[in-house]
Amino acid sequence: MSNSISTDICIIGAGPVGLFAVFEAGLLKLRCHVVDALPQVGGQLSEIYPKKPIYDIPGFPDILAGDLVRNLMRQIEPFHPTFTLGERVEHFRKLDDGTFALTTSDGTEILCKTIAIAGGLGSFEPRKPAIDSLDAYEGGKGVYYMVRDPETFRDQRLVIAGGGDSALDWTIFLADVAKEVTLVHRGTTFRGAADSAEKVKALHDAGKVRLVLSSNVTHVHGDGALEAVTITANGGETESLPVDSFIPLFGLTPKLGPIGEWGLELEDDAVKVNTLDYSTSEPGIFAIGDINTYPGKLKLILCGFHEAALMAQGAFKHINPDKKYVLKYTTVNGVPTL
Amino acid sequence: MSNSISTDICIIGAGPVGLFAVFEAGLLKLRCHVVDALPQVGGQLSEIYPKKPIYDIPGFPDILAGDLVRNLMRQIEPFHPTFTLGERVEHFRKLDDGTFALTTSDGTEILCKTIAIAGGLGSFEPRKPAIDSLDAYEGGKGVYYMVRDPETFRDQRLVIAGGGDSALDWTIFLADVAKEVTLVHRGTTFRGAADSAEKVKALHDAGKVRLVLSSNVTHVHGDGALEAVTITANGGETESLPVDSFIPLFGLTPKLGPIGEWGLELEDDAVKVNTLDYSTSEPGIFAIGDINTYPGKLKLILCGFHEAALMAQGAFKHINPDKKYVLKYTTVNGVPTL
Repeated sequence: MSNSISTDICIIGAGPVGLFAVFEAGLLKLRCHVVDALPQVGGQLSEIYPKKPIYDIPGFPDILAGDLVRNLMRQIEPFHPTFTLGERVEHFRKLDDGTFALTTSDGTEILCKTIAIAGGLGSFEPRKPAIDSLDAYEGGKGVYYMVRDPETFRDQRLVIAGGGDSALDWTIFLADVAKEVTLVHRGTTFRGAADSAEKVKALHDAGKVRLVLSSNVTHVHGDGALEAVTITANGGETESLPVDSFIPLFGLTPKLGPIGEWGLELEDDAVKVNTLDYSTSEPGIFAIGDINTYPGKLKLILCGFHEAALMAQGAFKHINPDKKYVLKYTTVNGVPTL
Repeated sequence: MSNSISTDICIIGAGPVGLFAVFEAGLLKLRCHVVDALPQVGGQLSEIYPKKPIYDIPGFPDILAGDLVRNLMRQIEPFHPTFTLGERVEHFRKLDDGTFALTTSDGTEILCKTIAIAGGLGSFEPRKPAIDSLDAYEGGKGVYYMVRDPETFRDQRLVIAGGGDSALDWTIFLADVAKEVTLVHRGTTFRGAADSAEKVKALHDAGKVRLVLSSNVTHVHGDGALEAVTITANGGETESLPVDSFIPLFGLTPKLGPIGEWGLELEDDAVKVNTLDYSTSEPGIFAIGDINTYPGKLKLILCGFHEAALMAQGAFKHINPDKKYVLKYTTVNGVPTL
């Protein structure tokens, strides 16, 4: 049986803006539950640059990203937020009474009166090369944009494409798993780590990996499942290569993910909001931080903090349409607890 | 000869939002000059509550107001802002080339390409009682809302009105200066300090001050200069009293001050702005922090920080209409210096 959580605001995204939203909601005595696909709080700050200093948080001449996250966690402590980490929000349902039901990738159900999407740049999805009919072989039919389970490729004939770390690392790893591995790269030098490039060259010299440089995979063929790819050299010569699987590894690109399917008004892969309270086109759903867009938008953490404050007012009004809330200053009243 | 300063942005108000605006402008390589009527930076944070903790600055579970000001001063150091403190901006002129000339109360001239009004709650002005024709006796003709120089009242017949500290303190002080002092208070107990109220009662018992309680000054009379006031008791009885000066001391109320006369679109004593870049109705003039208003406005320091960031973009575009600025992240690029 999966968990079920009931809350005032479900905050999607535990980055700095999502965390601070707990504080602003707490001042209005609204309870929050925070969900994030990453296994820890802090979003990009924890995932990508915890040891990097940030210089543009007002009042901090500099602060390590990880320390900012720790400070925010202490700041929201009085409001006892709860968290679902390592699970991605996948399904969205509007209930008859105007509240919402969200379900995560692990089946956790979150019932909430309002939703604050604080998803940062969104989830990251593989960048796909522009090859006709490539999508016809997705879903287990021979084209893979990431290696989830290397055993999928045991004893197969593989073509990997790309010049970065993922392409190099998987070429090295799969050389021992697959029957044959061909690495196709459009250039002659690799963007990935020098020692990985060295290893790939050594595998090539040992006859364990085939290297095709200055070339691109330009066509995919096969009846139902993938059977061959066409490799075109920069000079124009083409070669058809029989394969079981083709793995283009061209990096990740940020995408809205499932939130993009909720019917919210979007613009340039971001959620359009009203600057009155950072509400989306769907009443009760708000979007704050890097995931939203509005005229003048700057993707700065400090702007997300402001958006969180106004969002909390909007959520309060949505939940209590008849109550009037008077702004109270923490300097005068301190921080209440929930 | 007075000082003359030339700058990209003249920031009016050295409170937290005005100070942080220097940082955001600095990232865009814009120079700032900051003017404040108070003799020190920090605005209300330094003037009213330097030793009070603030709880709603993102990333600080709590911080003393004075420490926040010190941190902000350190944060803007790389951009070398200059300051004119203890002078109030009084005059405003738009020059033919679209730039502005401001003049302070002490005659300092500031030439600037753009103006960012960060005046907080504005200047504080005396709260005037609702008495017909009161303003006819302002400007040295018998009605004074504050005591600038007690000698003005030497050997005069005075009526002071009010029940707070100012009314009590000046009654005590002027009892030795004026010929006669009448204190009129609408209630029977005073809001001011208990020992001041005791002193006033003692002066009354000693025949040095006349106390008229449960009463209001309701009319002022005189041909050109003030000659008499009418005092009406709460029961309805009236008394006409010959006076040289009437000093209503009902506290201070925040007002826009001279900025209110610049022809900017106002609403409820605040400057209306566009949330795109917090620009006012006058191109090149912006308003950020507590002094502005827009739909959803919250008078929070953290909102002013956001407004400062977007304002800096607007000022950059106003100054460089043909240049395209690409947002750079301090985490990637560090903080440039000017």
